[in-house]
Amino acid sequence: MAELPDKRTAFMDWYLAVVDGANLTDKRYPVKGMNVWTAYGFRARRNLDTVLIREIEATGSEAVEFPTLIPATEFAKEKEHIKGFDAQVYWVTKGGLSELDVPLVLRPTSETAMYPIFALWVRSHRDLPLNVYQIVNTFRYETKTTRPFLRVREIHFFEEHTCQANEAHATARVESNRGAFRKMAEAFALPYLPIRRPEWDKFPGAFYTVALDIPVGEARTLQIGSIHHYRENFSRPYGIQYEAADGAQQFVHQTTFGLSERLLGAILAVHGDQKGAVFPTAIAPYQVVVVPIPGTDAGDGPLRAATEIAERLRRHGVRVHLDGGDERPGAKYYRWEMAGAPLRLEVGRREAESRSATAADRLGRKSKVSFDHLEHEVGERLAEFDRALLERARSAFASSFSVARSVDQLVGSTTVRVISWCGSEECGHRIETAIDGALLGTPEEPLPIPVGEPGPCAVCGTAESTRWALAGRPL
Amino acid sequence: MAELPDKRTAFMDWYLAVVDGANLTDKRYPVKGMNVWTAYGFRARRNLDTVLIREIEATGSEAVEFPTLIPATEFAKEKEHIKGFDAQVYWVTKGGLSELDVPLVLRPTSETAMYPIFALWVRSHRDLPLNVYQIVNTFRYETKTTRPFLRVREIHFFEEHTCQANEAHATARVESNRGAFRKMAEAFALPYLPIRRPEWDKFPGAFYTVALDIPVGEARTLQIGSIHHYRENFSRPYGIQYEAADGAQQFVHQTTFGLSERLLGAILAVHGDQKGAVFPTAIAPYQVVVVPIPGTDAGDGPLRAATEIAERLRRHGVRVHLDGGDERPGAKYYRWEMAGAPLRLEVGRREAESRSATAADRLGRKSKVSFDHLEHEVGERLAEFDRALLERARSAFASSFSVARSVDQLVGSTTVRVISWCGSEECGHRIETAIDGALLGTPEEPLPIPVGEPGPCAVCGTAESTRWALAGRPL
Repeated sequence: MAELPDKRTAFMDWYLAVVDGANLTDKRYPVKGMNVWTAYGFRARRNLDTVLIREIEATGSEAVEFPTLIPATEFAKEKEHIKGFDAQVYWVTKGGLSELDVPLVLRPTSETAMYPIFALWVRSHRDLPLNVYQIVNTFRYETKTTRPFLRVREIHFFEEHTCQANEAHATARVESNRGAFRKMAEAFALPYLPIRRPEWDKFPGAFYTVALDIPVGEARTLQIGSIHHYRENFSRPYGIQYEAADGAQQFVHQTTFGLSERLLGAILAVHGDQKGAVFPTAIAPYQVVVVPIPGTDAGDGPLRAATEIAERLRRHGVRVHLDGGDERPGAKYYRWEMAGAPLRLEVGRREAESRSATAADRLGRKSKVSFDHLEHEVGERLAEFDRALLERARSAFASSFSVARSVDQLVGSTTVRVISWCGSEECGHRIETAIDGALLGTPEEPLPIPVGEPGPCAVCGTAESTRWALAGRPL
Repeated sequence: MAELPDKRTAFMDWYLAVVDGANLTDKRYPVKGMNVWTAYGFRARRNLDTVLIREIEATGSEAVEFPTLIPATEFAKEKEHIKGFDAQVYWVTKGGLSELDVPLVLRPTSETAMYPIFALWVRSHRDLPLNVYQIVNTFRYETKTTRPFLRVREIHFFEEHTCQANEAHATARVESNRGAFRKMAEAFALPYLPIRRPEWDKFPGAFYTVALDIPVGEARTLQIGSIHHYRENFSRPYGIQYEAADGAQQFVHQTTFGLSERLLGAILAVHGDQKGAVFPTAIAPYQVVVVPIPGTDAGDGPLRAATEIAERLRRHGVRVHLDGGDERPGAKYYRWEMAGAPLRLEVGRREAESRSATAADRLGRKSKVSFDHLEHEVGERLAEFDRALLERARSAFASSFSVARSVDQLVGSTTVRVISWCGSEECGHRIETAIDGALLGTPEEPLPIPVGEPGPCAVCGTAESTRWALAGRPL
């Protein structure tokens, strides 16, 4: 039971220790950056996917699945796109004992797999909009240091791809995706900021990119998702066109929306503390852990009572785990705190007799829960826990931003900086050099701190049409 | 609206036409044998997976996920296994622009991915049993003709892998898997036979294999799943051992249980008819399709009533689709029959006024369903439909088997043949030659036709310890 590294001063060491301690993944698989989802980790992932599926389907998107392998010939069709990815893909060159005529790429993302088929599916304006998504694994031959969930070579991935009749409809789909993500983030209790990336940092082939970023301390940021407007940039090379109501042939305007297992990393990074992981109830593998405390004179009362309440909660739809093992209660508390279970119910002799369990939530708040009103009171404790978790995350979120009045103030910054920018690439790169990171782009929603109106560009002094930009150090 | 090929005389043509007609998959993806799951096909697959997950988790198995890529070095460790697969795998040889030091195999199945990690997970008898499963895609460089769902190169796959303390526990796990499959098959309304494969046809590396086979007409059979007992055949090369209660180091005994998207192919093959696909309600993408019939004098009454009942059924947990498009009702009926929807509700002017829909199930039975008791009556119709579907399938199942008294009777057989066999490989191969197919093995459950006791071996005349064997032509 070694102490965790300090989250503030040694974030990545802390993060890696939490991932290990919570037993979410096994990194000992003999391919670098490809990890095993343990049973516990898989439960968290499944709960996360459930939220994504619920919210995206509520906006009229349907699940599909395209093949994992993409012929080199299709992959090469969109030049900007291949330029962004060709050094980062895995190549299948052999099938059985012979060389393949056309090498196959393990999808890094599925534009080039889907769009030749979209060209067959979309014929008329009546086929639009086409809103489909898939949850699959993607592959990147990552050369940077890999980190569980944050940067891996096999990535659990969510990708929506849509075809719209025109640019305005595509813009509306971007807005709809933003609304869907707002609801997803609520379930994760995760404050974030949608940021329009600068031209030089948008997705290869995109018209524009709205990234979904969170700060994770020390001016570092994590991109947890992105929404792209492609205009006709892919539909032209792939020939995705339709007959409009007036009989004219038109190219569709496309959008995509991408999320990944990095969301799980973000949940760990934002909510975790010096005791380990902390899961919001929507994601928690087990929302409630019941621990019987078999005192020397307690008989089997505690175990019987613990079994009863676990069974009742399970029937009520709560994800509950009865930890009836023969470890000391203290060891169990330690383990389930590390594993991030939102609520622990302790049942000793006294609790069994008084038919009221001791409840301790993962934020350390204790109370009593009567067996008579078990389902209702546990529901209340879980809701209170989610509220408190969100409040804590919001407060940390707000204190992660501050205004920089000059480029000098960017140097060595420990918060994400809000700075006036004229919009030029030259000034943008000056900002990036100063913070030793990236100009993240311009916020698409109000910042969590009062900032007023932007002044003249902090780099060149231009006063005309400046905007607030964000500067930080992406993980 | 071309007629389907005849299912009896041109089974494979019929099958391919049904798959196309029901729009379950798109075969135009530019890699042979790798198909696109359409939105409709994906719904069927998701429902199928839900059944698998429910039944396997009820037996205490937990979901995990191992990486897709397996290093060549691990893949080669189990010699029997690699011998079975090495001509059938895809090889990843390049990452980005450079050759990989160790080539990677796209998993054809996950023994060699999982077992090095199982060796780390299993330490003590307290870690046993280890029962885990994953639902992932696997890859085979298939050289035979590919067929949607039946033989593909990217396969949607279910695989359970377990570690048990000894041979008897592993045998019990095989039995538990058989029980789980019995329940899965109930949901699919699919009669099947568990068959112990002969030695020369068991899974590479297995001690024994129980295959789950169904007849699909003309003596053809389809293996829809398999359960394997591995004894210590994998645990020795991979070093999966544990400390027993007495302190001795023991190798675990392992089992696996495999199923695939072929189940969906089997459901189509068994239940489908000359009107198209027929889905049991557990799998049907839409259990109920509501069709408003807007007569010239009907106003918007039919559409309003159809919308009302669709909404009520949806709230009740029924998967329902309101087909409000502007096609003729007849075209809609044709399409949803082809797509296999179990129940259609028609709502015209008369139905809207009398608040009672015309119900037609996919087996052609018509009735009325009153709006007042809508949820209850639709539930009844669906349950009746499932019962009738199972009865029809059982009857076809029983008539797919017949006894052969001599090897001569195997030649040109149009049913799966039940034949006396001494158990020798030599006689087995004689049987295979005669039927121009395979000796499928010995049935592990009573046959669906009365057969009595086996006589002397139909090949060599040996009378001692003969058994019934099955001979057919695997698809």
